[in-house]
Amino acid sequence: MKIIHTIADIRDFVRQARGKSLTVGLVPTMGYLHVGHLELMRRAANICDTVIASVFVNPTQFGPGEDLDRYPRDLERDARLAEGAGVDAIFNPSVEEMYPAGYCTYVDLERITEKLCGLSRPGHFRGVATVVTKLFNIVKPDCAFFGQKDAQQALVIKRMVDDLNLDLEIIVIPTVREADGLAMSSRNIYLDPEQRRAALVLYRGLLKGQEEFRKGERDPAQICRRVTEMIQAEPLAKIDYVEIYSHPDLVTVERIQGPALLALAVKIGSTRLIDNILLGV
Amino acid sequence: MKIIHTIADIRDFVRQARGKSLTVGLVPTMGYLHVGHLELMRRAANICDTVIASVFVNPTQFGPGEDLDRYPRDLERDARLAEGAGVDAIFNPSVEEMYPAGYCTYVDLERITEKLCGLSRPGHFRGVATVVTKLFNIVKPDCAFFGQKDAQQALVIKRMVDDLNLDLEIIVIPTVREADGLAMSSRNIYLDPEQRRAALVLYRGLLKGQEEFRKGERDPAQICRRVTEMIQAEPLAKIDYVEIYSHPDLVTVERIQGPALLALAVKIGSTRLIDNILLGV
Repeated sequence: MKIIHTIADIRDFVRQARGKSLTVGLVPTMGYLHVGHLELMRRAANICDTVIASVFVNPTQFGPGEDLDRYPRDLERDARLAEGAGVDAIFNPSVEEMYPAGYCTYVDLERITEKLCGLSRPGHFRGVATVVTKLFNIVKPDCAFFGQKDAQQALVIKRMVDDLNLDLEIIVIPTVREADGLAMSSRNIYLDPEQRRAALVLYRGLLKGQEEFRKGERDPAQICRRVTEMIQAEPLAKIDYVEIYSHPDLVTVERIQGPALLALAVKIGSTRLIDNILLGV
Repeated sequence: MKIIHTIADIRDFVRQARGKSLTVGLVPTMGYLHVGHLELMRRAANICDTVIASVFVNPTQFGPGEDLDRYPRDLERDARLAEGAGVDAIFNPSVEEMYPAGYCTYVDLERITEKLCGLSRPGHFRGVATVVTKLFNIVKPDCAFFGQKDAQQALVIKRMVDDLNLDLEIIVIPTVREADGLAMSSRNIYLDPEQRRAALVLYRGLLKGQEEFRKGERDPAQICRRVTEMIQAEPLAKIDYVEIYSHPDLVTVERIQGPALLALAVKIGSTRLIDNILLGV
């Protein structure tokens, strides 16, 4: 497996693959890989002849006061894990390589970004859409792979690909969880043992919401109330949002009639965690 | 020459050209072609094996109260002229084809768009950057051709191509003028004979500025003052802006030391015209 740091070199790598008529899959990540990432990579290796994983902690998707500086990084470990999952090349550019002096272009989505994490993290999806557009233009993959854990991100990227007529397929892979249900996240490393136990309340909350839905509840406000109550019972948890929207349009609904996304963001200590579940699918 | 209305069909056309290892050039236009457009097309035909001209009056680059509704359109005439200039296919999509229901993605540039026409026409360059990104992604040309008449647009697009890592070359062609110096523009059709005569003041103003520069004046404010005086002497002319910036960065300078852009926008009656000249090149 190759580790490539420049845009010119990764383009060269792709050109060689294309020269052999190989298909190319891209797995964009911020590194510090966990089993969820590896699942994306294995799926990519199943579908595409050549798999490129990008490892880039993208500064433009972090807000002021967020965890850009302390975001965990370990390229050596990432390389070992990615290779085992079937990745052919890691693209690991510097911040200067991606955003040279004078950089000023951003990709912005209306409406779909003005809720959920887009409200709590202004500018976050602008940063995500921008870096993903750049990665797509650099690698020109046939397919790109994202996790359902970042549900809004996956929807934003699918919408952006449609809107900007980007010529690739977006494949979304189900959330991978620890044995006890906690969604895999690079940020789980921030949790101390007590917080790690408390963090289970996110998934328990989602299961509570699913149970209410299965019992026939179709009022989003009622379901969110039950979920909120359960999470509030955990003293270490501080809710950012618990919300239900139609899926995939992310529109507010008075009653759940089609597929819906129950999504939540909860702070455990200073660590902000997100999780979600689909209802009615 | 083919006239193609859907994204699927133009992609097919490009795929066939690529299958024959032909290079592809794109000339994005809003139609109502004039000699300036035809010059872009001829140059494209010189450089590329296959030339596609898009003819699309892009609503997202018009502001409220601007001339979107009355912008001149004549596809039959455009087709005849484009064919004569060596174009192989016109891409003429509907608004719905380019911006289907639910469309929400925009490409935005900071700084470089916050002056000149970007100030007078808020959102204009957002619309331009967005539609050009879409056209680039749809056609995937090797080269795309723009006129120096829209100097800021050319700089915005070059910057965007660099920033978003779009893999094509932008070629900018000098402004084509009528025999008396008026820059070619589809909007010249709006001018009545008296206004047409008055519109000459734009080019005369630019020549005045160039003369001051050649005589050794390096203070942008002084040059702009002379140009402004000349234009103000024309009763039918109302100045929107007369400004000088460094080229290609579009930064304010106290003294002209390198290449600089003298750009102006002037209303003749209700018709807003722009023109520019490079100093020190």
